[in-house]
Amino acid sequence: MRATAAVLRAFNEPLALQEFDVPRLAPGQVLVAVEAAGVCGSDVHMWRGLDPRTPLPIILGHEGIGRVVEVAGERRDVAGDRLAAEARVLWERGVSCGECHYCAVLGEPSLCPHRWAYGIHRPCTAPPHLNGGYATHIVLDARTPLFPVADDEDVAALVAASCSGATAAHGFDLCPVGVGDVAVILGPGPLGAFSAAMARQSGAAEVVVIGGTGPRLDHCLRLGATVAINRNATDAARRLEQVHDLTHGRGADVVIEASGSIAAAQEALDLVRPGGAVSLVGFGAPAGPMSLSPFEAVARRGVRVQGVWVSDARHTARALALVRRQPEAFAALVTHRLPLAGATEALEAVATREAMKAVLVPESA
Amino acid sequence: MRATAAVLRAFNEPLALQEFDVPRLAPGQVLVAVEAAGVCGSDVHMWRGLDPRTPLPIILGHEGIGRVVEVAGERRDVAGDRLAAEARVLWERGVSCGECHYCAVLGEPSLCPHRWAYGIHRPCTAPPHLNGGYATHIVLDARTPLFPVADDEDVAALVAASCSGATAAHGFDLCPVGVGDVAVILGPGPLGAFSAAMARQSGAAEVVVIGGTGPRLDHCLRLGATVAINRNATDAARRLEQVHDLTHGRGADVVIEASGSIAAAQEALDLVRPGGAVSLVGFGAPAGPMSLSPFEAVARRGVRVQGVWVSDARHTARALALVRRQPEAFAALVTHRLPLAGATEALEAVATREAMKAVLVPESA
Amino acid sequence: MRATAAVLRAFNEPLALQEFDVPRLAPGQVLVAVEAAGVCGSDVHMWRGLDPRTPLPIILGHEGIGRVVEVAGERRDVAGDRLAAEARVLWERGVSCGECHYCAVLGEPSLCPHRWAYGIHRPCTAPPHLNGGYATHIVLDARTPLFPVADDEDVAALVAASCSGATAAHGFDLCPVGVGDVAVILGPGPLGAFSAAMARQSGAAEVVVIGGTGPRLDHCLRLGATVAINRNATDAARRLEQVHDLTHGRGADVVIEASGSIAAAQEALDLVRPGGAVSLVGFGAPAGPMSLSPFEAVARRGVRVQGVWVSDARHTARALALVRRQPEAFAALVTHRLPLAGATEALEAVATREAMKAVLVPESA
Amino acid sequence: MRATAAVLRAFNEPLALQEFDVPRLAPGQVLVAVEAAGVCGSDVHMWRGLDPRTPLPIILGHEGIGRVVEVAGERRDVAGDRLAAEARVLWERGVSCGECHYCAVLGEPSLCPHRWAYGIHRPCTAPPHLNGGYATHIVLDARTPLFPVADDEDVAALVAASCSGATAAHGFDLCPVGVGDVAVILGPGPLGAFSAAMARQSGAAEVVVIGGTGPRLDHCLRLGATVAINRNATDAARRLEQVHDLTHGRGADVVIEASGSIAAAQEALDLVRPGGAVSLVGFGAPAGPMSLSPFEAVARRGVRVQGVWVSDARHTARALALVRRQPEAFAALVTHRLPLAGATEALEAVATREAMKAVLVPESA
Repeated sequence: MRATAAVLRAFNEPLALQEFDVPRLAPGQVLVAVEAAGVCGSDVHMWRGLDPRTPLPIILGHEGIGRVVEVAGERRDVAGDRLAAEARVLWERGVSCGECHYCAVLGEPSLCPHRWAYGIHRPCTAPPHLNGGYATHIVLDARTPLFPVADDEDVAALVAASCSGATAAHGFDLCPVGVGDVAVILGPGPLGAFSAAMARQSGAAEVVVIGGTGPRLDHCLRLGATVAINRNATDAARRLEQVHDLTHGRGADVVIEASGSIAAAQEALDLVRPGGAVSLVGFGAPAGPMSLSPFEAVARRGVRVQGVWVSDARHTARALALVRRQPEAFAALVTHRLPLAGATEALEAVATREAMKAVLVPESA
Repeated sequence: MRATAAVLRAFNEPLALQEFDVPRLAPGQVLVAVEAAGVCGSDVHMWRGLDPRTPLPIILGHEGIGRVVEVAGERRDVAGDRLAAEARVLWERGVSCGECHYCAVLGEPSLCPHRWAYGIHRPCTAPPHLNGGYATHIVLDARTPLFPVADDEDVAALVAASCSGATAAHGFDLCPVGVGDVAVILGPGPLGAFSAAMARQSGAAEVVVIGGTGPRLDHCLRLGATVAINRNATDAARRLEQVHDLTHGRGADVVIEASGSIAAAQEALDLVRPGGAVSLVGFGAPAGPMSLSPFEAVARRGVRVQGVWVSDARHTARALALVRRQPEAFAALVTHRLPLAGATEALEAVATREAMKAVLVPESA
Repeated sequence: MRATAAVLRAFNEPLALQEFDVPRLAPGQVLVAVEAAGVCGSDVHMWRGLDPRTPLPIILGHEGIGRVVEVAGERRDVAGDRLAAEARVLWERGVSCGECHYCAVLGEPSLCPHRWAYGIHRPCTAPPHLNGGYATHIVLDARTPLFPVADDEDVAALVAASCSGATAAHGFDLCPVGVGDVAVILGPGPLGAFSAAMARQSGAAEVVVIGGTGPRLDHCLRLGATVAINRNATDAARRLEQVHDLTHGRGADVVIEASGSIAAAQEALDLVRPGGAVSLVGFGAPAGPMSLSPFEAVARRGVRVQGVWVSDARHTARALALVRRQPEAFAALVTHRLPLAGATEALEAVATREAMKAVLVPESA
Repeated sequence: MRATAAVLRAFNEPLALQEFDVPRLAPGQVLVAVEAAGVCGSDVHMWRGLDPRTPLPIILGHEGIGRVVEVAGERRDVAGDRLAAEARVLWERGVSCGECHYCAVLGEPSLCPHRWAYGIHRPCTAPPHLNGGYATHIVLDARTPLFPVADDEDVAALVAASCSGATAAHGFDLCPVGVGDVAVILGPGPLGAFSAAMARQSGAAEVVVIGGTGPRLDHCLRLGATVAINRNATDAARRLEQVHDLTHGRGADVVIEASGSIAAAQEALDLVRPGGAVSLVGFGAPAGPMSLSPFEAVARRGVRVQGVWVSDARHTARALALVRRQPEAFAALVTHRLPLAGATEALEAVATREAMKAVLVPESA
């Protein structure tokens, strides 16, 4: 049996379609025919060679949904059902060891030092080769949690739940938003959009999203934001005033930095109320240092600054629940659906922010 | 290579020493030479045929520590170190699937419907046969968390951390005790003794243990109880008065039922303060119904009644920390250390409560 | 200055309109002209003499909103604004001492042994006499939290937030529901209706309400329930099956008993999943004992049974947020709006369940 | 009736003993004869004019214990007992409004914007004049929680529980330490000493204290630290190595910055493990900015940076529990016990760090 993948061989070059032999599965492995592979902003980073971890050649793609072709041995999905051919599943993008202090004792597999992710850490020269989602098939490791997806669901709308959705959910796990709270989100990309939905579905009375791209702000409003503020049409003082107007002058209960920008992180500290939390979800890559006054900004105001890194299966489950509650609004985020041969085009659309979300649909390849 | 085990072939009969071939290991399995196998109260239940799950013939023993003989493939202990021959480890007694909603999404492997435990669920007729701790060797499954144990540690003192210690820790995970709290523990057996240590090490200002056996109460005092009340020398009204005297009339913040008795569970509801928690840790077997007034006992007083079932690796880690802080006091709990051939004698000593804790030391077999 | 109140002088008799002199205020007290006084199910209990605490003669009414007439000294509302005449406020129905272990140390004023509530604990013979909401005016104690209400809000729709809404919110404070969870609510009265809204606004994927009154179930569907099950058209086995169908056979994450019925509490224990929580919110009066198997129902399944008693200001704040997110749906709950002279009629409508919610609008008196 | 106080009239000048008329009490106020008044590091700041809030003239002293002389009306201590003359009490140093969002809704009185503290915010020219603890008498506000102190307790050993003890406890409230954890504390002054006791009494397996003053490190060892590292005898790399040796290379679960130094805050970020917490407890005054890399130091490692500001009654209760468990070790911290006339001497001893803790004992004045 043969599979086709879009392979990144050289940075900034177009991906090349390449054929692979489907390997014999090791115990616990699952062969999946990919139905949707999300194109993430970090894929663009890797494509451009900005992520020093990137091994070449590599099949990019960590977000994915597909149909089980073959299972080596007995596996279950997270619903507890025995996995069989034809089952449709979304896979957890990260694989953790399950054995170490972080996995077994702390219950925090996202911190596992042995964690690796599909489409990020392993080149296609390493067995089982089909290690990324930009392909007709992928081989999933025995320790990969699998979420059942129904036949009538829109896989392109669901697929980002496994990455930006889960990471956003992780942020709320650490810095919860509850009924009546006011949340502010800086950055209206996929992370911000999921955060808006999460904040609102968690009961926030007001969800303020700040960003510079009108259509992205509109998506956030559709998903749960109650107020959108265009960064280009306001200054920081005015934005602070707007947040204070909504909160009797206190500031937001939780501020989510979802853009990875130092300026936004600084602004987050001004927008949060005493005793509130600033959730740093958006920093996926080095961005240099910020200046922080421990007394004035943090101690005196009792503020929490919380770093958030990737996610685990509990967060994916919550992100899926978000999408399933308003599938049309999430489907609208997917501005680009392309075949496998369109992988380079998809990366470009994400790079230019022309796409809010691009998804490869390899079946059409 | 050959191994010897004490096998339960017929209920209430002496265990029989039997030789086994050590099997070839499957990927991820670990062969361990047993150095200490704890004899638990539930082993007595199984021996007597009171636990309907018990498959015959079986090698009992779910608590254990030993030396690694062989590892099939790459495994790590919870410290993250690569597992090698001669490593000394305590093993997690339960094996969960790692894939289902309880394991992967809720992070509660103790609730996994596929969970099984060494020495409890699998007969020695099922591969890999060496499925229990009353033996010179045991074969551990690939999904078994392993805790490193140092060469100079007293394995007999540590071994109960994997069962009664971990279960006690699970109770505190659900119903925490903090600095300045008052805890009451009903039942001074191993569960109660670990609970006394856990309550005190968690900062409880007072730890009251109620029981009927003087020497057991003395053990609890040594481990962390600040007050011991002999059930046979008092009535419930007097015990309530003593708890009220310690709490300005409020009642205890947390009451831990560690005896599995209906009368104790009823008394627990009287001893807890409004807004406090009753932790039902002691019910390891059916004990019939109790009468509960939802209004008076629970709703009107804002009380939490919390069931606790077995444990997982995070609890084992905490139980080990308890023992390591006062190893001599825990070593003193081990009233009986016997060779493998003494397994039946050990069960009898536990059954009659002559033993506070009995441990088999198979190396001497 | 004179005030008029509907006074309960003898159980089961019509309330009598009576005039009072408005007293001179003590420091911190606030005189409020009542705009809306909710008629609660417990008012019916008191009217009928079923609540042994009831002092006679009494002005019933613990739920209320009105306009400030006079403030003795300096007071602030919870938004931190200085309270002045004409301010519109909803008042916290319970007054706690603020000094004791429950208030000052535990932060649980709802458990304060000195707590008392307007319209419940103090007769109108005790100063300042205007101690209940069924009146044109009420005198509020210095320790009463006050929530600002805007001029354009429907006070009748908001008023129940201070009692059934806040109590429901307290239940979720103790037994949280999160994004993706499945909640079951037994009893579709005001407590159940608020619980349905709270569960859904907290992110529940499914909110199942079980009840016997069709129109009440319809209200719950409008407020957030996703499934309504008519108790009279099903048996317990079928209801369990429906919940299992929604949860892959696990049972509900949280089950809320909102009816005060023993049978419902028993059923709740069957409907909850292992490791889930049963929240006993509905028991406002003695209902006799239930039979509970500590092993099978609680310990073996790791279940939490949580009593919930009244509420405090943090819960009122959340209940107000619930109503403000869907004010029309909550306004529709108010089936009866009556003048002060209609107080007896209102009690009867609640007693017969003809009313989902009745509110007195004393200004029209 | 007359009272004597040590009054700060001009910065850096000796305090002057001054007589006051004891005022007539307003409702709820309590007149207390001071038995112990702690001299805090922040008193030194005020004395030197480094705290811009300081109103002159002022009676310093926010930490205190004394005997009730008179109560205006009915008051209760936190045990719920009616307050009467001769009762011995420790008072909560901060007074919050009890009415605002922080007090009533969030349950966080330490964040109340209207909060003020004895000996800090109010000059002795403002009624009731006796507003600080460096005096024979103090007048306590109606909203001051009062903790009963027994006749046989050492008030000088207990008194710091109301400030550094409570603030330390607040830090643990936000960033908890549990059984088996490893905590690192930077700064061995009173805050660090309380933190060491709190960490150990909360079950930490290892409590590492880093500081530059040998005798202070010895105090911490006596109170609960398991490892003391002299900053002057090591460099940061060596300290990191020591912490890694204790934690299998992970870093500490919780790092408590208790010195208010930027360098220590920076080091804290290196010493914490992925997913751990850095608690900024020590910043009581401006200290300038620090440089922080949101990606490398916080996001990528999932770290929490938590500001901590003052405390409330729940923290005081826990700090009292700490002292009561090891009163001798805490008494040993009190290196200086001086009469009221020795107030200036006490400030100097604290300023030079000659004193670990100085306490005024005004009865001897």
